[in-house]
Amino acid sequence: MKAEIITIGDELLYGQIQDTNSSFIGESLTAEGIEVVFKTSVGDDINRITEALDVARTRADVIIASGGLGPTQDDLTKKAVVKAFKRNLIFHQEILKQIEESFRKRGSPMPKVNQNQALIPQGAKALSNLWGVAPGIFIEDDETLFFAVPGVPAEMKWMVENEILPALRERKPRHFILHRKLKTTGISESAIYEEIERLIDPKEDVKVAFLPGYLGVDIRLTAESGEERHAQVKLDEFEQKIREALGDFVYGTDKETLEKVVGKLLSEKKQTIAVAESCTGGLIGARLTNVSGSSEYFERGVITYSNQAKTQLLNVPGEMIERHGAVSEQVAILMAEGVRKLARTDYGLSVTGVAGPTGGTPQKPVGLVFVGLAHENDSFARKFMFGEDRNVNRERAAQAALNLVRLFLIKNRSAA
Amino acid sequence: MKAEIITIGDELLYGQIQDTNSSFIGESLTAEGIEVVFKTSVGDDINRITEALDVARTRADVIIASGGLGPTQDDLTKKAVVKAFKRNLIFHQEILKQIEESFRKRGSPMPKVNQNQALIPQGAKALSNLWGVAPGIFIEDDETLFFAVPGVPAEMKWMVENEILPALRERKPRHFILHRKLKTTGISESAIYEEIERLIDPKEDVKVAFLPGYLGVDIRLTAESGEERHAQVKLDEFEQKIREALGDFVYGTDKETLEKVVGKLLSEKKQTIAVAESCTGGLIGARLTNVSGSSEYFERGVITYSNQAKTQLLNVPGEMIERHGAVSEQVAILMAEGVRKLARTDYGLSVTGVAGPTGGTPQKPVGLVFVGLAHENDSFARKFMFGEDRNVNRERAAQAALNLVRLFLIKNRSAA
Repeated sequence: MKAEIITIGDELLYGQIQDTNSSFIGESLTAEGIEVVFKTSVGDDINRITEALDVARTRADVIIASGGLGPTQDDLTKKAVVKAFKRNLIFHQEILKQIEESFRKRGSPMPKVNQNQALIPQGAKALSNLWGVAPGIFIEDDETLFFAVPGVPAEMKWMVENEILPALRERKPRHFILHRKLKTTGISESAIYEEIERLIDPKEDVKVAFLPGYLGVDIRLTAESGEERHAQVKLDEFEQKIREALGDFVYGTDKETLEKVVGKLLSEKKQTIAVAESCTGGLIGARLTNVSGSSEYFERGVITYSNQAKTQLLNVPGEMIERHGAVSEQVAILMAEGVRKLARTDYGLSVTGVAGPTGGTPQKPVGLVFVGLAHENDSFARKFMFGEDRNVNRERAAQAALNLVRLFLIKNRSAA
Repeated sequence: MKAEIITIGDELLYGQIQDTNSSFIGESLTAEGIEVVFKTSVGDDINRITEALDVARTRADVIIASGGLGPTQDDLTKKAVVKAFKRNLIFHQEILKQIEESFRKRGSPMPKVNQNQALIPQGAKALSNLWGVAPGIFIEDDETLFFAVPGVPAEMKWMVENEILPALRERKPRHFILHRKLKTTGISESAIYEEIERLIDPKEDVKVAFLPGYLGVDIRLTAESGEERHAQVKLDEFEQKIREALGDFVYGTDKETLEKVVGKLLSEKKQTIAVAESCTGGLIGARLTNVSGSSEYFERGVITYSNQAKTQLLNVPGEMIERHGAVSEQVAILMAEGVRKLARTDYGLSVTGVAGPTGGTPQKPVGLVFVGLAHENDSFARKFMFGEDRNVNRERAAQAALNLVRLFLIKNRSAA
């Protein structure tokens, strides 16, 4: 079964809002093993909506359209459906009664314009709407299962889960498509490719895709099978092979975040951390504390933006800052040691760098970042060279800092 | 000129990531007065990408495709372009040199697989890529202006702004659709509507739309005209009317962020601020320091996650925390005063709250947040009651804190 999602509304084309409806529908269908092959967004224009429906009917078995079912003159979905499917609109007395009833429950009279919503294309089934007034539409013909749902997210979600997915389950052959994402950081897409190229066989059951971002590259595995268990096993086996090839570059799977992984490692060891941030300005603290339960291991952070703060809070000698510069290996180490001592934690983590766009020099260009890590027996710093964009540099610095902690905790796992 | 945006990648159909690229492109084209009529997303499948290109060529004058330009076997855009436009791929020695050069700059050798990226369809122009390796593609024929850009957001954005928009400007007839966003916080969508309903006239030249989010409601104004200047004036006039009706609830326009506005107010007064964060864990610091030049007014932050840190760094008496609880008006005020004194800044800003999902009690439920502000003559705190979601609560708390500073600075503007 191949599906197309059509989302309707001018605002989707202006790009000022995110089309979260199509994401929800895409995720729901994929989880059912229905392959989504196209997504189309179209404005509030009757001819273009009709065209989108015509095109979708040539290439999909299931079409779900969202939006444009309201009562006003810019809600055009039903008119387009009538044109595309060549059916008349039929007035349904019992639907009108339901609409009147739902207004009565809220204690307000039904505006006359809502009468329109009792019109349904010939031969279509009305889908019930728990959270709103507009019924959805379901048309089943020889080629297509067509559904139209409202654009209001709560109404759309309820209708997809309670009306559409059950209808699809009854009709679809049993087939499963499972995905898994392996998340890496600190290694480039092409380096990953060189390491695992030999594992990728286009004729194989597990498909591999690379999703690069500036914080790392995700590797997406896709397995298909008539049996869910079988697809799962194929993913497990392939994941194992990739982990063997890439080692610690893989930090997690699917929705696991780097900060969650770091938190888990600290919790396992019952150890604590404190953070001293300069150019990241609080990003590392914000990420670590976004994990529920982080107060167990995150004791405090300091955002020592000024040199004075570095000296006063972290005991970094002003003379050291003057000699080596605030962005230096030496100062990164002293910041990490300083915050560890201040907070009496097992680890002190620090970041100092030139985020840009100003502040760079030939010796210390924009993008230069030092990450320091202090612990009981030692302290050290690593140098990173990022790019030109302030925001990206800050985020990459935070990612590199969290990854440094992760790698250190893994390496010293046995010593816990 | 009518445009279609095509985004390429299986992950867009599975619904696990938001298609922010098409939003950015949609917004950029709309701002240029180019009407976006369709958006299509398609997976990593050569036949379906080709079909999407074929369909788009029948209904759009401008096509921008994003994604699938990487070096690996699942990057299929160029192969599909070759099929749809019936052109061969030609190897370009000078593009290979640029690719090698960009690897050399990073100090790593070029993997062999990247040679592919020097192949460009016959007659196409290569678009330069400041942030990455893969060049974009521009094909101009009798019917269509076709552009392909990488899917990595930073590379895509740079290419749209520096290669595509200039090319389109040269070629497009002059008609202007201008947008302006007025950004509000601290007021609900319906309250805004009641205040400005009388200004909205559907027959008027300026269209109004409401874009609510959990950090505030944006009001989008749209004006069309054959003359850019004329549309601009209409927007200016309408903005003025809305500002009169809503007053200080409007904090900025378009890409102005709340942290930028706060920074500007502090710079004007040559004043400084320090921040003490508990439940926001660094979010406020991260936002304030994301503004280039923020070191002028942001002296430091402390993330006092533990009670010990509140006492030790901010001098909040342990006895006060015990009596009133760490989440209380009293502690918020003491934290703000403490960080102001510690950093010797003009303002001390603090946040303490129950972000959730755990830690709530009947007296101090999840979502309860206090924001404190200390300054030369006084200090005070405000209470906020947010919702159930940890992440949303943290972001709303950071927004409320920054807004409290903004309102205070505006009120005391004349006193500077």
